[in-house]
Amino acid sequence: MQQQNDLYPSRINDKDDIIWRTDPVLHPSDIHPAEHLTEDLLQHYQEKGYMLIPDLFNEKEVIAFISELERMKQDSAILNSPQAITEMSSGDLRSVFQIHCNHPAFSPLFSKTARDSRITDVVRLILGGDIYIHQSRLNFKPGFRGKEFYWHSDFETWHVEDGMPAMGALSCSILLTDNNAHNGALMLIPGSHREYISCTGETPDNHYLSSLKKQEYGVPSDQSLSYLASKYGIDCAEAKAGSVLFFDCNVMHGSNSNITPCPRSNLFFAYNQINNRVGDPFCGKTPRPEYLCSRQTMTPI
Amino acid sequence: MQQQNDLYPSRINDKDDIIWRTDPVLHPSDIHPAEHLTEDLLQHYQEKGYMLIPDLFNEKEVIAFISELERMKQDSAILNSPQAITEMSSGDLRSVFQIHCNHPAFSPLFSKTARDSRITDVVRLILGGDIYIHQSRLNFKPGFRGKEFYWHSDFETWHVEDGMPAMGALSCSILLTDNNAHNGALMLIPGSHREYISCTGETPDNHYLSSLKKQEYGVPSDQSLSYLASKYGIDCAEAKAGSVLFFDCNVMHGSNSNITPCPRSNLFFAYNQINNRVGDPFCGKTPRPEYLCSRQTMTPI
Repeated sequence: MQQQNDLYPSRINDKDDIIWRTDPVLHPSDIHPAEHLTEDLLQHYQEKGYMLIPDLFNEKEVIAFISELERMKQDSAILNSPQAITEMSSGDLRSVFQIHCNHPAFSPLFSKTARDSRITDVVRLILGGDIYIHQSRLNFKPGFRGKEFYWHSDFETWHVEDGMPAMGALSCSILLTDNNAHNGALMLIPGSHREYISCTGETPDNHYLSSLKKQEYGVPSDQSLSYLASKYGIDCAEAKAGSVLFFDCNVMHGSNSNITPCPRSNLFFAYNQINNRVGDPFCGKTPRPEYLCSRQTMTPI
Repeated sequence: MQQQNDLYPSRINDKDDIIWRTDPVLHPSDIHPAEHLTEDLLQHYQEKGYMLIPDLFNEKEVIAFISELERMKQDSAILNSPQAITEMSSGDLRSVFQIHCNHPAFSPLFSKTARDSRITDVVRLILGGDIYIHQSRLNFKPGFRGKEFYWHSDFETWHVEDGMPAMGALSCSILLTDNNAHNGALMLIPGSHREYISCTGETPDNHYLSSLKKQEYGVPSDQSLSYLASKYGIDCAEAKAGSVLFFDCNVMHGSNSNITPCPRSNLFFAYNQINNRVGDPFCGKTPRPEYLCSRQTMTPI
């Protein structure tokens, strides 16, 4: 069942389709750029759909993040909560959701970080005004046995399964360990944010219960991915711990496995424009739980 | 059951151990270096346990290799032979063994390439004299769904399961596609060839039937790998198609998965010194089949 005014229909056809983006990437704004945000960086974001700001958080702050992460990994209330997602094969912790608000996985430190002006000033500038937190999570890719995360556009899921109307959102990933191509750093297809891949299939009930371990719907076909990668190439977000990656909600991204001894962890916040609040899911199914998509709290931060 | 004179025992204890290499890396030789082999390259090989020679084969030759590879992928006699190894989960072709001699997977082109003087002159110089082909194979890491190949020392398996007495062998990998960190290029721990990790466990009967898909014995512990990687770092063998990687039989290596659309394929030949011929396996089990370890033909090439 399709909602009216669905600008980006997906999972309704039996083959992939490309829908050209109509929403801006840099949204009109009279906000002045923060000190650490150069014109070059903003232009890179506009053209490639992402930008990497090195060393936005210092070494002391990263140490505090890691120590908070270690605490959370040992908190059985968190491990047994629905907010904790484990690897399908090994049972290792893969993600903890909803770290920013008052739920089992709540972390005062990470909640404060989600509101840190070094991040939110940049987000407000790009999204052109007031924002709220759509989703937050801690991602682990353990050493030796870290599994791949297949190619996807965040917006495709947020649109179809959460009812986010337009491309007025972005993600921000704070690197907690050095990320390099060896240990499964995020790969992005630069420029792919301008094209929306309408995927095949129909969303099953409670898709999120399996999709967070291995996504099977909302996955672009081999043909679509070959098209994007040969047109735009593949970039790898290699950077030191403390650096921050900002990426558009529709840029195609994924990561390979990690057999190196070096874990890859990051802190992930997704922000949405206040005037782009989520409605009924476009797939017509029951909305995903609050820890995957804020509905109860969509007030500006 | 241990053979006498086992310089490198493995899979006999319940924890990993390090045995320092006693064999040379560059074996004494009065052979003159080939034109494409510089002193710098040889020194790199000596210190790091590997060297990469760019563009040893030209574009036309690579095209011929790829076309031969495509032919073999469609040959049902090959696909149904024991020489063909498929991925455990997807059933996709992962390797074809014994491409150099008269068996189902035989390829006149690859057999000739195994004897190409651009390769064999280098191998004879490093190994210090006459050589024979211990093993040959074609490796595929398909795009989108190519799986990781976990860390291992080739020599550990060749010693324990094939009865190769000493470290008098090396491998040569001819890149058939561009290899980069994105698409699962080989990672090597530079310098690790000087330390032999004696692994835990006992070799099961017919271990090769599963080990070629997923190795469970002869696998270094997390602790040993952390030790090596923090001591030596990790290098990634990134190079264009037509380049050739030569690596010592005891250098620790492995590769991550490949979700990019770009397959990673290579042609792999392992050479052994004539005076280092294999004997009874040091694990006391039945020898592996001829397509994994030459026994019937150990004559100089």
